[in-house]
Amino acid sequence: MTERENLVTVDEMPQHEGQEVTIRGWLYNSRSGGSIAFLLIRDGTGIVQAVVAEDDVSAEVWETAQNLTQESSVIVAGLVNEDPRSPGGYELHLRDVQTVQLAEEYPLALKEHGVDFLLDNRHLWLRTPRQVAILRLRDFIMARLEEFLRDRGFSRVDTPILTPNACEGTTTLFETEYFGDPAYLTQSGQLYSEATCAALGKVYCFSPAFRAEKSSTRRHLIEFWMLEPEMAFFTHEDNLDLQEKMIDYVITQVLQKKGELLEELDRDKDPLTFERPYPRITYDEAVDILHEEGLSIQWGDDFGAPHETAIAERFDRPVFVERFPAECKAFYMEPDPQRPEVVLAADLLAPEGYGEIIGGSQRIDDYDLLLEKIREFGLPEEEFDWYLDLRRYGSVPHSGFGLGIERLISWIAGLDHLREAIPFPRLLNRMRP
Amino acid sequence: MTERENLVTVDEMPQHEGQEVTIRGWLYNSRSGGSIAFLLIRDGTGIVQAVVAEDDVSAEVWETAQNLTQESSVIVAGLVNEDPRSPGGYELHLRDVQTVQLAEEYPLALKEHGVDFLLDNRHLWLRTPRQVAILRLRDFIMARLEEFLRDRGFSRVDTPILTPNACEGTTTLFETEYFGDPAYLTQSGQLYSEATCAALGKVYCFSPAFRAEKSSTRRHLIEFWMLEPEMAFFTHEDNLDLQEKMIDYVITQVLQKKGELLEELDRDKDPLTFERPYPRITYDEAVDILHEEGLSIQWGDDFGAPHETAIAERFDRPVFVERFPAECKAFYMEPDPQRPEVVLAADLLAPEGYGEIIGGSQRIDDYDLLLEKIREFGLPEEEFDWYLDLRRYGSVPHSGFGLGIERLISWIAGLDHLREAIPFPRLLNRMRP
Repeated sequence: MTERENLVTVDEMPQHEGQEVTIRGWLYNSRSGGSIAFLLIRDGTGIVQAVVAEDDVSAEVWETAQNLTQESSVIVAGLVNEDPRSPGGYELHLRDVQTVQLAEEYPLALKEHGVDFLLDNRHLWLRTPRQVAILRLRDFIMARLEEFLRDRGFSRVDTPILTPNACEGTTTLFETEYFGDPAYLTQSGQLYSEATCAALGKVYCFSPAFRAEKSSTRRHLIEFWMLEPEMAFFTHEDNLDLQEKMIDYVITQVLQKKGELLEELDRDKDPLTFERPYPRITYDEAVDILHEEGLSIQWGDDFGAPHETAIAERFDRPVFVERFPAECKAFYMEPDPQRPEVVLAADLLAPEGYGEIIGGSQRIDDYDLLLEKIREFGLPEEEFDWYLDLRRYGSVPHSGFGLGIERLISWIAGLDHLREAIPFPRLLNRMRP
Repeated sequence: MTERENLVTVDEMPQHEGQEVTIRGWLYNSRSGGSIAFLLIRDGTGIVQAVVAEDDVSAEVWETAQNLTQESSVIVAGLVNEDPRSPGGYELHLRDVQTVQLAEEYPLALKEHGVDFLLDNRHLWLRTPRQVAILRLRDFIMARLEEFLRDRGFSRVDTPILTPNACEGTTTLFETEYFGDPAYLTQSGQLYSEATCAALGKVYCFSPAFRAEKSSTRRHLIEFWMLEPEMAFFTHEDNLDLQEKMIDYVITQVLQKKGELLEELDRDKDPLTFERPYPRITYDEAVDILHEEGLSIQWGDDFGAPHETAIAERFDRPVFVERFPAECKAFYMEPDPQRPEVVLAADLLAPEGYGEIIGGSQRIDDYDLLLEKIREFGLPEEEFDWYLDLRRYGSVPHSGFGLGIERLISWIAGLDHLREAIPFPRLLNRMRP
C-alpha cells in the first residue's frame, strides 16, 4: 500500500469538510449513469457515497471505479463535501481509487436471502449495515452494563467454564474429559460468585455459558453470554432495585447516545421509553392473569414462553414476577419467611414478547437449610462441600442475578431471533462457521 | 438484619471522620489486652481496625466482641477517628456489634499454608488481603485494556468457545459432543476476529481459551483469558506500535492509580517504570544472544521458557522478538517479503522472567498463498473454506495479536505463579473447587 496523507474513517468526515482525505474500506454498492458513478464505501464506522465524474479523473481511475465488484477492498481519496442527500450527510468527490483486492462474485448479493444461507455465510453476513448496527449496539450495551456495575463498587471476578459439577441440573450439560475426569461446561458462574462476593462484597462475572438444549426456538442459544452480579448483605428487595436501575441505565444510554443504531434497525423507540419503577407482581398474581387469558398452568409449574408473553402483555414496561414456588426453582433460593413454600426469587420479563431477561434470587445463607435442600434435590453432597463452607464461615444474606446478554440485546434492538444478537450463533445442530 | 443508619464501606471512611457509621463485613483478625480489644474488620473494600473499650460499651457488646471467631460476619457501628497508626489511617471507636453468623473454626488460620491446601480452599483463600489485592488489580487491568481499545475505535465482538476445528494444532484440545458431532473448546478467537474486522475495521474478542497441556509449569493454565485485537489495514509495524502503546497505557494507569495494590503485594515499582519505545530484535539476534548465554537452540526452533528469560534479561523493559522462522509459527502468518523463510510475527517478552505476554502477526491476505499454507500444514481444507472466503471477498492487509491476561497480571503484580492471577485456576489434574 502507498502511504496516504490525511487518512480518516467515515465517521470522522464531518470534521474534514472541504479537505482532501483518504478512506480505506470495501465497496458496499455502486451505480453508474453515463459519465458519473456513485460508489458506496463502508469502512466499519459507516458508509460514505463517493462520487466519480469521468471528466474529473484520469481514464485509469474511471475504469477502476467502473470495474469494482461488490466487497472489493479499496483505498479512495477525494474532497469531503457536505451533502444532505448523501447517507451520513457528507459525500466524497473522488479523485483517486486504488484496488486492494478485486473481490470474486460475492455470494451475498444485495437481495433477500434465506436464513440457512445467511447463517452458512455468517462470516460475510456480518458485513451488512444491519448486522454491523447490531454488533455495535451489542458492544455498547456490554460496555454500559460493566460501567454501571463498576461505578457502584463492583469488581469483575471471572468464574471458570470447566467445572466438575452442575449448577442447575445435568440433562443439558456439555461434557468433556479433564485429564481423565469428567468435566462440564458451565451453565452459570453463580456458585463461584457467591464465594468471591464474600471476599470482595460486590462482584460480577461475565462470560459464555452453555445449555445443550435439544429445543430450537427463537429465544434459545446453545452458547450465550451471561452477566451475573452477586452482592453480600443484599436482600431480595435490594436485588430488584439494582436490576431495575441497571436496565433503566442501559436503555437510557442507548436512547440518548445510540439512537442512530436503533434507526438503522428500524426499531421503534416508543416501547423503550418508560420510567421506573417497574411493576412487581407475585407468581400467584401471574397465575391468575394466565387463567384469565385462558392459558393452562398449575400452581408449581414454571412459565414457558407463551406464559411469559401473556403476562408481559399486561404491562407497558418490564415486569418483575416474584415469589415462585420453591419446587420450580433452583435449590439455593431463600424461602420467603412469611410463606416458606415460595422463594425470594424474581424473573424480569421484557415487554413485546421478549420473555425473561433476568432471573435472580436471594440465596440461602443458613448452613442447615442449604444442606437440607442439597439433599432434597438429590445433589451430590461432596461436590457442594466447598459451597457449604460459605455458610460455615461468615455467612451473610446475599443475592444475585443472571442477565442473558443476547435476550437484552434482542429486546432493545427489536430482533426476531436471538441468533442475530451474537456474532457466531451456536444453535441446535449448527456450530459453523 | 436491623436497618442501620449511615451505612458506609471501609474505603469511604475518610469522608466520615467524626461521624457515627455502620460497617458490614467479616472479622479478619482480633487481639485483646485487658479492657481493650482490637477487631480488624474487612468488607471487600478494605480493612478497618475497630477499637472496643470495655468501659465504653455494654457488657453484652463486650462479650460479643470477645467471642467473635475469625471470618465471622458482623455489623459494627461506631465513631470514625483519624489515626495514622491504623491500617488505612482511620479507626472505628466501636459502640455496637452484631453477629450475623458466628464462623466455625476457620481452616485458613493466619499462618503459612501449603499450596495444595490453599488451592483446595481457593474459595476461602480468596478472602485474604493479598488475594483481594490481586483480584482488584485484575479487574482494574481488564477494564483499562478494554478502555484503551474502545477509546481507539475498537468494537468488542465476541467469538465462540465451541468450534468445529482447531486453530493452532489438535494435540491440546478439549473435545465435547455437539448434538452428535465432535466439537472443541477454542484455543483462540482469531480466525473469527479476522472475519469481524472485515465488517467493523477494528475489533477485539475477550474470552476464556483452553489448552489441554499435560505440562505443569508456573507459566501455564489450562483455562485462561485472552484478549485478541484484530485490525484491518494494519501492517506488522502498526501492530507492534499498538501493542506497545497498550502495554504502556495499562502499566502507567496501574502505577498512577493503583500503587496501593502494588504495595499490598510487596511489588517493587522500579522494574515497571520504563518508557517507550520497547527494543525490537529479530529472531536471529535472539538466537545469537542465546548462543552467547550458552543455551542450546537451533535456527527454526521456537523458544521455551528458559530462552525467553535469557533474552528478556538483556533488557530493562519488554522486548519484541520479531521475524520468526515460518516453520515454528502458525500457518496464517504473512511471510516477510524480503526474506520469505521468516514471518511478520512478533512475541512480546516481559522482563524479570515472566516470558511471552503477547504473540501477534500480520496475517496472510493472499488467497493462493493461504491455501498453499493450509495444505502445507496438513489442515482440513473444507473446514477453512469460510476462512478462505475472507481472502476471496475484499481481502486487506490485516494484523492482530493475543494477550494472555493472567501473564500480564502476574508480571505487573510480581506473582510467582499464574495460579494466583485467576480466581479459580484450572491446572493439570486440578479443577476443584
